[in-house]
Amino acid sequence: MEALAIFAYAFSGLIEARKRRLDAVGAFLVALVTAFGGGTVRDVLLSRRPFYWVEHQDYMLFIFAMAIFAPYVLRVTSRLFDQRALLITDAIGLGLFSVSGTSIALDAQMPAFTATMMGVITGVFGGVLRDVLCNEIPLILRDSRPYAVCAFAGCWIYLGLEHLQVDTIYNVLLSTAFILIARLITFKFDIRLPH
Amino acid sequence: MEALAIFAYAFSGLIEARKRRLDAVGAFLVALVTAFGGGTVRDVLLSRRPFYWVEHQDYMLFIFAMAIFAPYVLRVTSRLFDQRALLITDAIGLGLFSVSGTSIALDAQMPAFTATMMGVITGVFGGVLRDVLCNEIPLILRDSRPYAVCAFAGCWIYLGLEHLQVDTIYNVLLSTAFILIARLITFKFDIRLPH
Amino acid sequence: MEALAIFAYAFSGLIEARKRRLDAVGAFLVALVTAFGGGTVRDVLLSRRPFYWVEHQDYMLFIFAMAIFAPYVLRVTSRLFDQRALLITDAIGLGLFSVSGTSIALDAQMPAFTATMMGVITGVFGGVLRDVLCNEIPLILRDSRPYAVCAFAGCWIYLGLEHLQVDTIYNVLLSTAFILIARLITFKFDIRLPH
Repeated sequence: MEALAIFAYAFSGLIEARKRRLDAVGAFLVALVTAFGGGTVRDVLLSRRPFYWVEHQDYMLFIFAMAIFAPYVLRVTSRLFDQRALLITDAIGLGLFSVSGTSIALDAQMPAFTATMMGVITGVFGGVLRDVLCNEIPLILRDSRPYAVCAFAGCWIYLGLEHLQVDTIYNVLLSTAFILIARLITFKFDIRLPH
Repeated sequence: MEALAIFAYAFSGLIEARKRRLDAVGAFLVALVTAFGGGTVRDVLLSRRPFYWVEHQDYMLFIFAMAIFAPYVLRVTSRLFDQRALLITDAIGLGLFSVSGTSIALDAQMPAFTATMMGVITGVFGGVLRDVLCNEIPLILRDSRPYAVCAFAGCWIYLGLEHLQVDTIYNVLLSTAFILIARLITFKFDIRLPH
Repeated sequence: MEALAIFAYAFSGLIEARKRRLDAVGAFLVALVTAFGGGTVRDVLLSRRPFYWVEHQDYMLFIFAMAIFAPYVLRVTSRLFDQRALLITDAIGLGLFSVSGTSIALDAQMPAFTATMMGVITGVFGGVLRDVLCNEIPLILRDSRPYAVCAFAGCWIYLGLEHLQVDTIYNVLLSTAFILIARLITFKFDIRLPH
């Protein structure tokens, strides 16, 4: 499931790179930054080492291969996954990254509000860095659809269940499921943030 | 006074977010980055923890509330403060942030030139990150009006007075006042940097 | 030779600043970020201190002077160096920065693939940050000419020779020479990356 989340984020980087007509190096760097940017910013803020992508070099090699065969990967994937499958995969990624980010921040003795912010950062900063590299205003800052807000709410649910001493595995699953469902519902009913 | 400086910076983030038609999440993130970006970059460079905004969660919550009620806040504030009041508030922020950044860098055993650079970074990097997020060339890089230069001069004055063993409180007040006045004078007489 | 590499990078920052019509502060900051950005990002990722530019304040002062006299510096340099000399100087910089970055990452116990990535980051991130500040899509992400790829190959050659226990000085010279030559050859024959 973790692999799926990383794949979903890297894939959204590849799509953006293609749209901007970047070369293979650009596709690799943008995919890498999208997949690991959020966690890396969180770890730098928390002074935490080693980074996830240093411990799991295989993911980095996987993205390396994805970028080299990007045109092929994009063609195959667009046949296998439709728009909706991508939305769901991305929402799972958002859920997993945000909840795990909150959990890691709590382990590092962060206070509650900061911990949820770290969770949101883990979930959304990959996309922010991707858009900054591609010279756009980050999507989450302007796309009035609730994205960071769903992550934020899910992080508080994680905090609440943690406080009620729910077993961590169930807690992660429940909060991630909440973020996934919240994202799909707000999408379905086209709920918008105030502008 | 510190609260005033943070408010001034966060407020300039809100204005920029409004100009770019960002949503509530965008307004919050841009205001947050403007207010705490400079100090956070400095602390990452100095390997210093905890961050100011982790120790003072109440400021973060305050900006959170500001962003949610951004349209209302912007309307009230534009009635209370005119352009000149904002210029002064921002200049006080620049002074306080730069001088305190220099002082913190000195405590971390940085050499003189580096310490003043850290002071300037503390004062101006919030604005740089705000503009990068909003997809603009940072204002301080192109607006030939002396902004970073005033901060830089004030940081050296702080260093000089520190060397003369002036009491820290007076020193901070004097250097901050210098930056404030320098900024207002260069503005009044429309002094420009070479292009 | 190190001074030459830093000069080459800072100079490319000055050129970019001029193109974007930045003021003296902009020229200084962009030159500084181009020259030291790659190494600083690497050091933040490796939790390594002090930064190169803190230990070598003289380089920072040198760039400070370059930025103040930017129009003059640009005129003199464009007379002394033609396009080809700049290409070579920049390629030497790329080689030195990448190889030294790899070596530093190895000393910090990074695994092989990560070490070469850190090398490439050291070599190219100055330019990436320069372009982000100047509000452009970073050149290395879109300019299908092999730049990061040459650095990447050279870092692996460094790793290989290190494994064969070649003396470090010879190793650095050989790998840097490889990157320089690879860059010039791919330029000469107009070799392109897949888009």
